Amino acid sequence: MAAGSSIGTLFKITTWGESHGKAIGVVVDGCPAGLALNEEDIQKLLDRRKPGQSKFTTRRNEGDQVEILSGVFDGKTTGTTISMIVWNQDQRSRDYSQIADCYRPGHADYTFDEKYGFRDYRGGGRSSARETIGRVAAGAIAEKFLEELGIRFTTYTRAIGPVEIDADRMDTAELNNNKLCMPDAEAAKKAEAYLEEKMAEQDSVGGVVECVVSGLPKGLGEPVFEKLDANLAKAMVSIGAVKGFEIGAGFDAAKSCGSGNNDVFRMKGGQVEKATNHSGGVLGGISDGSDLIFRTAFKPTPSIARTQPTVNRFGEEIDLEIHGRHDPVVVPRAVVVVEAMAAITIMDQLLLAMTSRMDRIVDFWKK
Amino acid sequence: MAAGSSIGTLFKITTWGESHGKAIGVVVDGCPAGLALNEEDIQKLLDRRKPGQSKFTTRRNEGDQVEILSGVFDGKTTGTTISMIVWNQDQRSRDYSQIADCYRPGHADYTFDEKYGFRDYRGGGRSSARETIGRVAAGAIAEKFLEELGIRFTTYTRAIGPVEIDADRMDTAELNNNKLCMPDAEAAKKAEAYLEEKMAEQDSVGGVVECVVSGLPKGLGEPVFEKLDANLAKAMVSIGAVKGFEIGAGFDAAKSCGSGNNDVFRMKGGQVEKATNHSGGVLGGISDGSDLIFRTAFKPTPSIARTQPTVNRFGEEIDLEIHGRHDPVVVPRAVVVVEAMAAITIMDQLLLAMTSRMDRIVDFWKK
Amino acid sequence: MAAGSSIGTLFKITTWGESHGKAIGVVVDGCPAGLALNEEDIQKLLDRRKPGQSKFTTRRNEGDQVEILSGVFDGKTTGTTISMIVWNQDQRSRDYSQIADCYRPGHADYTFDEKYGFRDYRGGGRSSARETIGRVAAGAIAEKFLEELGIRFTTYTRAIGPVEIDADRMDTAELNNNKLCMPDAEAAKKAEAYLEEKMAEQDSVGGVVECVVSGLPKGLGEPVFEKLDANLAKAMVSIGAVKGFEIGAGFDAAKSCGSGNNDVFRMKGGQVEKATNHSGGVLGGISDGSDLIFRTAFKPTPSIARTQPTVNRFGEEIDLEIHGRHDPVVVPRAVVVVEAMAAITIMDQLLLAMTSRMDRIVDFWKK
Amino acid sequence: MAAGSSIGTLFKITTWGESHGKAIGVVVDGCPAGLALNEEDIQKLLDRRKPGQSKFTTRRNEGDQVEILSGVFDGKTTGTTISMIVWNQDQRSRDYSQIADCYRPGHADYTFDEKYGFRDYRGGGRSSARETIGRVAAGAIAEKFLEELGIRFTTYTRAIGPVEIDADRMDTAELNNNKLCMPDAEAAKKAEAYLEEKMAEQDSVGGVVECVVSGLPKGLGEPVFEKLDANLAKAMVSIGAVKGFEIGAGFDAAKSCGSGNNDVFRMKGGQVEKATNHSGGVLGGISDGSDLIFRTAFKPTPSIARTQPTVNRFGEEIDLEIHGRHDPVVVPRAVVVVEAMAAITIMDQLLLAMTSRMDRIVDFWKK
Repeated sequence: MAAGSSIGTLFKITTWGESHGKAIGVVVDGCPAGLALNEEDIQKLLDRRKPGQSKFTTRRNEGDQVEILSGVFDGKTTGTTISMIVWNQDQRSRDYSQIADCYRPGHADYTFDEKYGFRDYRGGGRSSARETIGRVAAGAIAEKFLEELGIRFTTYTRAIGPVEIDADRMDTAELNNNKLCMPDAEAAKKAEAYLEEKMAEQDSVGGVVECVVSGLPKGLGEPVFEKLDANLAKAMVSIGAVKGFEIGAGFDAAKSCGSGNNDVFRMKGGQVEKATNHSGGVLGGISDGSDLIFRTAFKPTPSIARTQPTVNRFGEEIDLEIHGRHDPVVVPRAVVVVEAMAAITIMDQLLLAMTSRMDRIVDFWKK
Repeated sequence: MAAGSSIGTLFKITTWGESHGKAIGVVVDGCPAGLALNEEDIQKLLDRRKPGQSKFTTRRNEGDQVEILSGVFDGKTTGTTISMIVWNQDQRSRDYSQIADCYRPGHADYTFDEKYGFRDYRGGGRSSARETIGRVAAGAIAEKFLEELGIRFTTYTRAIGPVEIDADRMDTAELNNNKLCMPDAEAAKKAEAYLEEKMAEQDSVGGVVECVVSGLPKGLGEPVFEKLDANLAKAMVSIGAVKGFEIGAGFDAAKSCGSGNNDVFRMKGGQVEKATNHSGGVLGGISDGSDLIFRTAFKPTPSIARTQPTVNRFGEEIDLEIHGRHDPVVVPRAVVVVEAMAAITIMDQLLLAMTSRMDRIVDFWKK
Repeated sequence: MAAGSSIGTLFKITTWGESHGKAIGVVVDGCPAGLALNEEDIQKLLDRRKPGQSKFTTRRNEGDQVEILSGVFDGKTTGTTISMIVWNQDQRSRDYSQIADCYRPGHADYTFDEKYGFRDYRGGGRSSARETIGRVAAGAIAEKFLEELGIRFTTYTRAIGPVEIDADRMDTAELNNNKLCMPDAEAAKKAEAYLEEKMAEQDSVGGVVECVVSGLPKGLGEPVFEKLDANLAKAMVSIGAVKGFEIGAGFDAAKSCGSGNNDVFRMKGGQVEKATNHSGGVLGGISDGSDLIFRTAFKPTPSIARTQPTVNRFGEEIDLEIHGRHDPVVVPRAVVVVEAMAAITIMDQLLLAMTSRMDRIVDFWKK
Repeated sequence: MAAGSSIGTLFKITTWGESHGKAIGVVVDGCPAGLALNEEDIQKLLDRRKPGQSKFTTRRNEGDQVEILSGVFDGKTTGTTISMIVWNQDQRSRDYSQIADCYRPGHADYTFDEKYGFRDYRGGGRSSARETIGRVAAGAIAEKFLEELGIRFTTYTRAIGPVEIDADRMDTAELNNNKLCMPDAEAAKKAEAYLEEKMAEQDSVGGVVECVVSGLPKGLGEPVFEKLDANLAKAMVSIGAVKGFEIGAGFDAAKSCGSGNNDVFRMKGGQVEKATNHSGGVLGGISDGSDLIFRTAFKPTPSIARTQPTVNRFGEEIDLEIHGRHDPVVVPRAVVVVEAMAAITIMDQLLLAMTSRMDRIVDFWKK
């Protein structure tokens, strides 16, 4: 689709807003009528991305209270467009003179100027991390919808830099006990130490987010271009700072053999099941009833405290110092963004999958 | 987009056909008028995916001669839909009785039955690798178009199972000297030995394809959901057997620090350039003028010669023997599919990027 | 949507082919699996647009036998893309020298040259009436699908030039008794006389097609831009030679008063019904359970036998004589095209309407 | 497209909001960067649809001040999503008890209940005429854009009930001299008298809006489904209360002969021109360089003061009295809505048409 701020076919969202503009928001189209929904449902998910929670996230107190402007009546969605808004509280005219003219390494300043001829340079403008507010607000609706159908999300930090969780120690209850959203207390402790070290060096680190979706019906996704995993890949790589996506065994599958990677089908309680889940819940682009499991790689925060060489828009080589606090790692705050984008993608696919069989369509309309 | 056999917005392709149906084809919509094009242009790319070239690909002589049925007149595209067809020469009614009822591990048999209620079981039907013929035929048009604008593709096998090419030995001239499309003679030799070993064990292996695109204008891709890399990710993961996608430093970026991963901007011959290219040619979802570099992970061929346990559609656990020859690795033949999908994606983005600036639009129409 | 040869969201068709190219065809994506379908189903509708049936249609024996190339297995649709083809039997290289360079009044020759820089001038190329073969073939599938849900189409010629059918004499049984598809024997006779007169004058005439759809469920169509009637309007005006569309009372509604135009709701057999149907079956863009009734205005055939002044592509004013036989009126052959486009539009809307209510979605997936 | 509140491909708008919700708004995606734009530009067009201007429009003082929330920086569009909002000032909880349960004739109450299971009944909810605020705000941007390319709109009331303007007396200067937007002083006087009469009878009337677009480049629109006129038809019929659309000679073309309806090409000042313009500026779905001329039929306002029989949602037949003031005719206020939708459609087509020719694309990118 052109005009890049919309995603989805039947459940479609359109986000808008810049980091230091008046507000940030999203319009959600195609949410079925009759879903119970209020602002608290949205706020809960939004709060999971709020900064200021630890020394690893920026202190700016954003508040970020969401307001629903349309599409909900008597506590239920009406089936028409749901508009949500979060006002920006931090619009003061700072001195952006340095950043306005220079191209920060790892940021989109240069490509925006090349594409559009100029840019809203305040706080990253449209490519700021605040853009994800709209994604998360829309994702909250999708998650609420999917919950009604028994679909659940478990999303967490799998790795911070080189520190990865250990499958044997994995404990999702641990997820909320540490600021890094790691389901492994020991790994979390190591990762915190690693982060402190890098912060002391005025540096930043990357990481990996993993998402597990359970309760998915079989049959979601289309066999050719609209594969479930292809749509997830797009949704994930559309998140700022993401450099990679893999599903199931992922890049490890490339190193494995068919005899080990194939998931053997077995009968269990009268149901067809896979003995293993290297596929990550998708066969031929279509959900197979196992848990959906995928990972997303985030690069290190490009804004670092140490001085960096760069150029400005006048073609001069300069030394850049980025002031202000920046998260040394985006991963813990990105966990909820990954989950939101997954929920948005899956809800859309679930609606689309309702029209795949003649018998079910006849049943539906004959009632 | 629903109805999963189309991809693209301005340059849009729709594929059709099953492995053992009458024919396989593609309809290309949105190709600009006036591009010189003939069947030889298409055949050249199609021949790169043709099997029967080595002991690592199946022997079936497919021929696969493409025919252009519309949209070309006097040797040039007319601006209207280009329909291309390849007749299937191998439609004999074999005995599919075993495969018809059973669910092959790693294949889409089970998910097709769950989604559609039944399936065309002959040779994998719609999820056969022959489906990629339409992609490659359309990709040939996209590549021809992009060549006119100075955009070039170099695509190759980066790894076969655990055997990876060595950056220091990399030599693209070597690409066509070995059956595995590896630009490193030594790695190719090792990979061949590895493959022979696995074939002897009645097993299959996976691998990684890497694609480098040079000459790309700056400014392709949209900042939010329609990022250039997000669209590439979808295009790649939509290829059968793909389990992962990464761009630039990819999953390694997740382990790196900002100071190392940031690409510093420098002036070179009066032009802004990046000193390194960890971004893989994309910043904020928009092409930055460096080479576009991405990798795609393929799982091992699911069809293996050794007996596998599975279940049939009657819910019985059975032992499955898959007869006939199957490629022990899909990667060498998938190289051209990756390139075709990249070309299709980039051509679409290049057309979309023509409308980003008022001054350029006024210029365009005022002439 | 760009790249103009596709229409539809969930049920999506893509047509291709030129009048004198190798073949004409259509790819249908999004047809649910399990619909019984064979070539005879398609041929039946195609035969309704076949020329050579009367003195009012051209004599060229086209044959136009459709072939299904994919998407059907064991007599049922598989849920994947259905490709259909009709070979052109009349590709002889005639002498197109005059027509190649001149701009026929009322045709698209001039606008094609302006848009694309050149054109396939043989027989109208892509804007030939033969382009409708793909529409009708796809429409046959949609009609078969809708029949399973009890939805029926009655489509006929409402007017030929100034000769209109009389509501009091209307008799749909009469439809197949005359070559003009008029459900009024007396009007048909008058219209034939009028046509003969105009043919003698080397002239052509226009007309109006009316379509009535019964058995439509309530709730099809979306309230804002995706209104059922808005989509019908687009589908109709996309047919070559169409200059107007109206639904229900149409342009007459503009002259009426609210007290007369409003359709009063009444109870009938425990069901809500409208006492009249000036709305034509749509309220607020959503089907209301009454018959859908709309009309489409066709201009006179632009190709006429008498000499016409025009210009050629070298900017010279010339006198044009169009040789060969042309239908003096397109309406009788367009009846089935209108019906096909209506069926395609309604099938798409019917699939889309399955996701409007939470309770129905939960029901669907909980089974 | 599903999820009906978006329209357009490259220039795409998404509207949201209900009549008596918190606010009404629109998100505009795909507006090129660098277009000078401020709130005054939007307000000017919005004011043309504001009620309270005459005895023929409702007195409610809406204010309707638009606020731009994103996408504009330093007085110019940035190329990213433009969000605009108008707060509803009239959200008081009136007594909607009667209207909440009953189905007003000619309104969408019944179809909303059937489609969604319930509805926001306050003031028509999503199908209120206030929904057009978003359309007009987006249309103001499109018109500003098109002005830069020399494209101009003249839109007016062609008929009020049976009172039509006279071509011989037509004077566009007159347009702003009367409350009915009629470019014919005499017709306006007659129409006012007619309206007063119908108001006295507690009745309402319909009418016709005509739009003329000059300065359009040749080559806009695609030959098959995405014809310029097909997209205009959809845009127009998507406006509430519209029952018909025609272009050029429209329904009169159906009564005419080819010899009279064909527009003969002539040379004028070295340019190809049509001697007449029965085509209304479109040949084969593509703009031909003449003025684009089309008409849209509006039904009478369904809300009338006299008592009407109807049913309620409990299946009881009742007598309905609609309280409050309602416009006896929507046409004068709809003029600007027609213009806005035309501008939105044409801007999208103009951007799409930039990619039709190889030579122009090479020129564009080689610079």
